[in-house]
Amino acid sequence: MSYTPDVDSAWIGYLPYAIPQGHTTEEIARNELTAGLQALKIYRKFNIHTDESGDAYLLREKENELTITGGIPGILYGVYHLLSLLACGDSLPVGIQKPFYPLRMLNHWDNMDGSVERGYAGRSLFFDDQRVCFDPVRIHRYARLLASVGINTVCPNNVNVRPPMDKLITGEFLEEIAGLADILRLYGIRLILAIDFSLPVTMGLKTADPLDREVIQFWTKRANEVYMAIPDLAGFLVKADSENRPGPFTYGRSHSQGGNMIARALKPYGGSLLWRCFVYNCKQDWRDSVTDRPKAAYDNYAPLDGQFDDNVILQIKNGPLDFQVREPVSPLLLGMPSTAKALELQLAQEYTGQQIDLFYEAFQWRDILDVLPAENITCICAVSNLGDDLNWTGHDLAQANLYSYGRLAWLGKCEPQTWANEWAKLSYPRAAEKVANILLASPEAYEKYTAPLGIGFMVTPHTHYGPSPDGYEYSLWGTYHRTNHKGVGVDRTKKGTAFTMQYPPALCEMYDDPKNCPEKLLLFFHRLDYKYRLKDGRTLLQRIYDDHFEGAEDAAFLEKEWETLKGLIPQDAFERVSARFELQTENAAQWRDVINSFFFRFSGIPDKLGRRIWP
Amino acid sequence: MSYTPDVDSAWIGYLPYAIPQGHTTEEIARNELTAGLQALKIYRKFNIHTDESGDAYLLREKENELTITGGIPGILYGVYHLLSLLACGDSLPVGIQKPFYPLRMLNHWDNMDGSVERGYAGRSLFFDDQRVCFDPVRIHRYARLLASVGINTVCPNNVNVRPPMDKLITGEFLEEIAGLADILRLYGIRLILAIDFSLPVTMGLKTADPLDREVIQFWTKRANEVYMAIPDLAGFLVKADSENRPGPFTYGRSHSQGGNMIARALKPYGGSLLWRCFVYNCKQDWRDSVTDRPKAAYDNYAPLDGQFDDNVILQIKNGPLDFQVREPVSPLLLGMPSTAKALELQLAQEYTGQQIDLFYEAFQWRDILDVLPAENITCICAVSNLGDDLNWTGHDLAQANLYSYGRLAWLGKCEPQTWANEWAKLSYPRAAEKVANILLASPEAYEKYTAPLGIGFMVTPHTHYGPSPDGYEYSLWGTYHRTNHKGVGVDRTKKGTAFTMQYPPALCEMYDDPKNCPEKLLLFFHRLDYKYRLKDGRTLLQRIYDDHFEGAEDAAFLEKEWETLKGLIPQDAFERVSARFELQTENAAQWRDVINSFFFRFSGIPDKLGRRIWP
Repeated sequence: MSYTPDVDSAWIGYLPYAIPQGHTTEEIARNELTAGLQALKIYRKFNIHTDESGDAYLLREKENELTITGGIPGILYGVYHLLSLLACGDSLPVGIQKPFYPLRMLNHWDNMDGSVERGYAGRSLFFDDQRVCFDPVRIHRYARLLASVGINTVCPNNVNVRPPMDKLITGEFLEEIAGLADILRLYGIRLILAIDFSLPVTMGLKTADPLDREVIQFWTKRANEVYMAIPDLAGFLVKADSENRPGPFTYGRSHSQGGNMIARALKPYGGSLLWRCFVYNCKQDWRDSVTDRPKAAYDNYAPLDGQFDDNVILQIKNGPLDFQVREPVSPLLLGMPSTAKALELQLAQEYTGQQIDLFYEAFQWRDILDVLPAENITCICAVSNLGDDLNWTGHDLAQANLYSYGRLAWLGKCEPQTWANEWAKLSYPRAAEKVANILLASPEAYEKYTAPLGIGFMVTPHTHYGPSPDGYEYSLWGTYHRTNHKGVGVDRTKKGTAFTMQYPPALCEMYDDPKNCPEKLLLFFHRLDYKYRLKDGRTLLQRIYDDHFEGAEDAAFLEKEWETLKGLIPQDAFERVSARFELQTENAAQWRDVINSFFFRFSGIPDKLGRRIWP
Repeated sequence: MSYTPDVDSAWIGYLPYAIPQGHTTEEIARNELTAGLQALKIYRKFNIHTDESGDAYLLREKENELTITGGIPGILYGVYHLLSLLACGDSLPVGIQKPFYPLRMLNHWDNMDGSVERGYAGRSLFFDDQRVCFDPVRIHRYARLLASVGINTVCPNNVNVRPPMDKLITGEFLEEIAGLADILRLYGIRLILAIDFSLPVTMGLKTADPLDREVIQFWTKRANEVYMAIPDLAGFLVKADSENRPGPFTYGRSHSQGGNMIARALKPYGGSLLWRCFVYNCKQDWRDSVTDRPKAAYDNYAPLDGQFDDNVILQIKNGPLDFQVREPVSPLLLGMPSTAKALELQLAQEYTGQQIDLFYEAFQWRDILDVLPAENITCICAVSNLGDDLNWTGHDLAQANLYSYGRLAWLGKCEPQTWANEWAKLSYPRAAEKVANILLASPEAYEKYTAPLGIGFMVTPHTHYGPSPDGYEYSLWGTYHRTNHKGVGVDRTKKGTAFTMQYPPALCEMYDDPKNCPEKLLLFFHRLDYKYRLKDGRTLLQRIYDDHFEGAEDAAFLEKEWETLKGLIPQDAFERVSARFELQTENAAQWRDVINSFFFRFSGIPDKLGRRIWP
């Protein structure tokens, strides 16, 4: 292949740096295809036929002529797909291509001051200095990147809607954000906006009670105004009664009452209400061993099944805790058969290395989808890992997570190896195989050197980077492992907090018995003695030691592997990634030593192989 | 007595709210005495005679006539002392009164943005919004409060001198700060200013190397300018090569080279250079068990004895660690016989309850002075506990620490009971005895429910309030207790890190042997098994449990005692203090349970008395 990707071209380096010209999606599709073929030095005739099939498209080739038939924006997806295939030298797929999920969403956690909550790739692309603020050229580049993998909905603002962000759907802010929608629309991308449930009070009403007439009128009027400015808005996103956010509970109302009220305001415009289910007691007393945070979402929402309007979609994190390196699927995603549900993933690596350490996420998603039938969810979304860093994601290789997420959202199934290879081929054509292998090895390495076997929350408080095994142990956050001289973990079986009973019977039985429970999840579900024997005969403690020694070694190995690619990767990207691997190796050694020391200090049992554990 | 103290009158409630008029210290002295006698309804004639005796004064009474003879500001000290005695109904002291330490200093850690580092009583009295900014009336009230207990030197700015604070001794900042000095001077108070060692570089020189000619010229010129603006400046204060501050080490120079160079610039004006000795490796690897932070100051400075100019004063924290609830005296204060040394205390309760929990500090000082001959130090200073809160210290009762510090600095010896009684009588005349008893009981309660037996650093990282027993365990700060299943502590004896060898032989022998070591310091010096027997036959672990149960009970008792004072204390102060005692009781219970659980989890040994320890 003949192209060398620019830094911020990401995996669409086959496109020219200049953004496409065009006033319609169709014009953009044509121009992108023309420019792409030229850049790839592929000289073939092409036709683009537009029809009414929306997202879908069909790619055909006949006697050196390429034809794309599809809807708006389907033809644009077709263009990017075709160019990718040509860039990789792959053959064209047979049959109509169409996405599995109609809403393929990206959630930014961007604040009005330009900071990004749990963002590791620079500052906001959309906000700065307490106002809407974006570079239109960068937004075109952002939109084409998303469209190239079929992402079609974007929430630009943080679910923690803090002033003045709460006024984003009013006045001049609304006009400005509509300008953002105008660009995105060209690429088939619709906005969704995160709102503040208590906005009626902020704007002068006495209450935000969802049953209050004035409040209902307020939201009706609000929706009308917003849809005047952004007619294709996908809807609103709400984080209510969660981590000190306001919500219906303040007024003694249920979440269905709260959600339905706003959903009805959106209904006439075809809008959806995404309602986050991250509701738990964030002021738990650590002494309380009955309350069990992973149970909270199910306990709160399952009884409401059937009570939500059909344009309410419950947005549920993949696991019952909070984006830890290893969690079981959230039981809420398996329940509530009469309610529309969205699966929420986190591309931002809050607990998985913060885009300093490499962590390719697609295996994590596969493990979820293995248990969760894709049909259980009507929509998929992910917390963005993007910022205004030139390479979008801070760590260049973290782009692979965005790419793979787009593929997942399109296909509705997980193919981690395929996507890693695709992404590597497109991004680093001269080093594709090794880059893919590095990606594929990364999650196991990270998991091994951090919190063991699904125990979760051994990170440094607040920052969530690096080890602090007891850091959340006596806190208000409901995240305890209760390690002592004999063992570790919380008993979440029927005999314990009974969290396992939130699962369908087969899963419940599996998780409930430590002999059947997947070992990677052992300490999520069970409290076990250090001397507990695993299937391979090792003790639990020895497994912990082994994993940590191995994980740190693996991290060092990844760094060495990367170093072999010097000269095969554009120099600036090579050096950026090298610098991160160096930090990762250090971080891995710190995790290894802290976790091993922590358990050695408690247990007094040395490593069987006599490796160094610091006293 | 007939007066009711105003909120911000503190212990000089016998003075009217209005600040004294007067252009000289003598006029102020006369006006204060006149107004004070009037407020106390004491109708007696008085004379004030001024002489050359500086800080000293003599009080006499003869046939209903009161006479104060003294220097400037001695007569003002005499006025406040006399009024205090009259307010308490005490008799006049015999003989000339004069202070033990010539420099009786208060160090504020105020930043230019108005925040106060480790401040728990509101915002800065001197700075706001990146500029010098004070309310002259409040400064008069502040100055009279300090003068009333003889404090005569004030450093208004943080030793961590961050931009634009580094330019405080330049341009318009200097003019403004000179305005502050003009008010303070009336009350016998001189300024000292914290400076940034790297200022030469900030202001355009290529280096701040203390042996560089241009740097020497820079500081000479700087000193000249500053003394033009503030002729009675006490000098400069420097925190160098400490916690990431710049210093001589950057240029391969010693601290005597660095300190002497600046001291020589101050010398012609009679200024002193206060040079802080809080130098240690704040990037220690927790795995390193050889490096021992308490050794750092002595190791760094003791070899330099005799090399400092006579106007350099080394400012040394009371203990070798960092203002923990219980530390031995710093061995550096006992060494360096040919060097002038200042004892630095911390009134701000960074590690002792943050002016939420009550902690009367004078016993801590007594324990230090019991070991440290007062003659060993030439000067005393304390980190301020003041802010712009109306009651100065956040917790009303924390005023007692400022009061007692003033007394200590004047007398050069410690009389905790006397001062608590004096302060209580002056501040809450109708409830004096009980208030004094509450103060006197407070430090033992706090010590019992927090980090046990001198172990130190079991606080929440960053905030330093509340328990986090492992919070600093795997950090870079050099503060480790290395608790495991068998025991706790760092061996600092001759057989361990040999920290004890920094002490003179008698102390070294005492600290080195756990049987002779004061039990309150046992875990500062020794690593001991949980089953180690204390003098009274209890195991170490049982002592830890007992202390924590008792300490939390004591805190609850203090709260109850305070509640009995309703109606005897001005209502607003009563309620403020009540609210703090409520928080303290909660904090004490949290400490009790976390520390007990922590050691129970490690040891597996239950409480002998069967009290509740959370598993």
